[in-house]
Amino acid sequence: MKITALAGGVGGAKMVHGLAAHIAPTDLTVIVNTGDDFEHLGLTICPDLDTVCYTLAGLANFETGWGRANETWNVISNVEKLGGAGWFRLGDQDIATHLERTRRLKAGQPLSQITKDFCQAWGIPQTILPMSDAPVRTMVNTEAGELAFQEYFVHRRCEPKVKSFRFDGIASAEPASGVQEALHQADAILICPSNPWVSIDPILKVIKTINRPVVAVSPIIGGQSVKGPAAKMYAELGIEPSALAVAQHYQRLLSGYVLDTVDAKLAQPINELGVKTLITNTLMTSLADRARLAEDVLHFIRSL
Amino acid sequence: MKITALAGGVGGAKMVHGLAAHIAPTDLTVIVNTGDDFEHLGLTICPDLDTVCYTLAGLANFETGWGRANETWNVISNVEKLGGAGWFRLGDQDIATHLERTRRLKAGQPLSQITKDFCQAWGIPQTILPMSDAPVRTMVNTEAGELAFQEYFVHRRCEPKVKSFRFDGIASAEPASGVQEALHQADAILICPSNPWVSIDPILKVIKTINRPVVAVSPIIGGQSVKGPAAKMYAELGIEPSALAVAQHYQRLLSGYVLDTVDAKLAQPINELGVKTLITNTLMTSLADRARLAEDVLHFIRSL
Repeated sequence: MKITALAGGVGGAKMVHGLAAHIAPTDLTVIVNTGDDFEHLGLTICPDLDTVCYTLAGLANFETGWGRANETWNVISNVEKLGGAGWFRLGDQDIATHLERTRRLKAGQPLSQITKDFCQAWGIPQTILPMSDAPVRTMVNTEAGELAFQEYFVHRRCEPKVKSFRFDGIASAEPASGVQEALHQADAILICPSNPWVSIDPILKVIKTINRPVVAVSPIIGGQSVKGPAAKMYAELGIEPSALAVAQHYQRLLSGYVLDTVDAKLAQPINELGVKTLITNTLMTSLADRARLAEDVLHFIRSL
Repeated sequence: MKITALAGGVGGAKMVHGLAAHIAPTDLTVIVNTGDDFEHLGLTICPDLDTVCYTLAGLANFETGWGRANETWNVISNVEKLGGAGWFRLGDQDIATHLERTRRLKAGQPLSQITKDFCQAWGIPQTILPMSDAPVRTMVNTEAGELAFQEYFVHRRCEPKVKSFRFDGIASAEPASGVQEALHQADAILICPSNPWVSIDPILKVIKTINRPVVAVSPIIGGQSVKGPAAKMYAELGIEPSALAVAQHYQRLLSGYVLDTVDAKLAQPINELGVKTLITNTLMTSLADRARLAEDVLHFIRSL
């Protein structure tokens, strides 16, 4: 069974890591959000792409879920000593990725080709695609004004109240090479438990149409985000954060939906939207959790 | 006594480090070659400026004479894993310098201002000036074709035979802010024991005229370079490498010349050029050597 997953950062990376334990590498393609990408210290940084790659390569920091394991911080601490910006904590190994990517981007190479080569260098057998080779930059309209995503997310710690989102460059951003093929050839599209507003929406806006069955895994459990500001965003936008709200967010696309056992009572209203549900334990704490959830999700997809 | 030193990398850094032990910080200005600067991995790297700064800041690697002490290499080793160029060994702490400098250069700030701020951050009380804020790039015309300096120096390990030098950008390169003042206000100009062809000549070509007494310290001892390709260059250009050849190189400028005791027999032909000489031990192996040579040189300058 061929799965094409749509993924943001940590939640998406955990989900596809679980999938990788059960399906052949050639059957798994991951389309990754690049709306969080940004330019910092002169480097082009792609946090979601890197989190997915590092995770599948076994290079990720398991404690944080992002960045590299056994990381050192000698560059950023010395940049700070020189008066440079230290608020985005870039590790030394991680900076190598950004340096070499930035060099190749400036030489005119597409992000998808660079990502492909990096995956090969890191020994990742699955296919990882940026959603687009064109830069798309998520802008968060907040009560403190419009902020670039990482400024909002990292520098301001998601504190300013969200009013809306804008995806700079999205109108002209074509899907990256391989994205349309991966969507057409998949038996199912899996929307990973990533932030609907800022991780999945940009991908959906770039790919425009999907004509394969879509299953989503809720990133909200018991009304709370597992990680990140998804629940906070729903609340600030006047929507009660819940697995139901996420299902409604994706409603027009969904064939199936996976929600946590603590949200079992929400299955009925979701079913009433015409969406089949799987109720299972969706919290991925351990490596075993990732594989077990992926197994449940794959079984659910086969049953649809 | 105010001294303005003209310096390249390791030899220049050692000499000014010695001078710093004897004269007040406000009396020492160093004008540093930037012809060796280059763009690599998307970074603007200024090897001579950094070597002088790291040395005066007490941050230099004493064993190599260049780079930072207690350095780590996690960025460059990971760049290499991604297929990037690893031949120029950039340490992690060193990369911080290049990243922040490159960011500020791209923002339109002059190299002299960036260098001033970095010196302040590193606690360097002396004045260190790049020879120019305009990029000058030393090109080495060799039997293997014209090579950018670091390509010749590091990547090709000075192997291709040298035919001539070209300093790209030198015709339009003005002295950096502060350079002319430092030359006019000095009691003497000291040409450090750096490579005449590729470290000192670019500075002399940028500053054009000097109307203060000039003293040089020979970088060639017993016909050999202490470090680097100076002697090899003289030989390949058809000139017997010697302290005399260096004195002849600078002849029109020199009031005084410092040569090693092993070259004592060359003092007479140098005196016959109208140049006074100091014969002393010029090899700087230990920190004490630097201070002792500087003391001898300063005493010699006072005597002129």
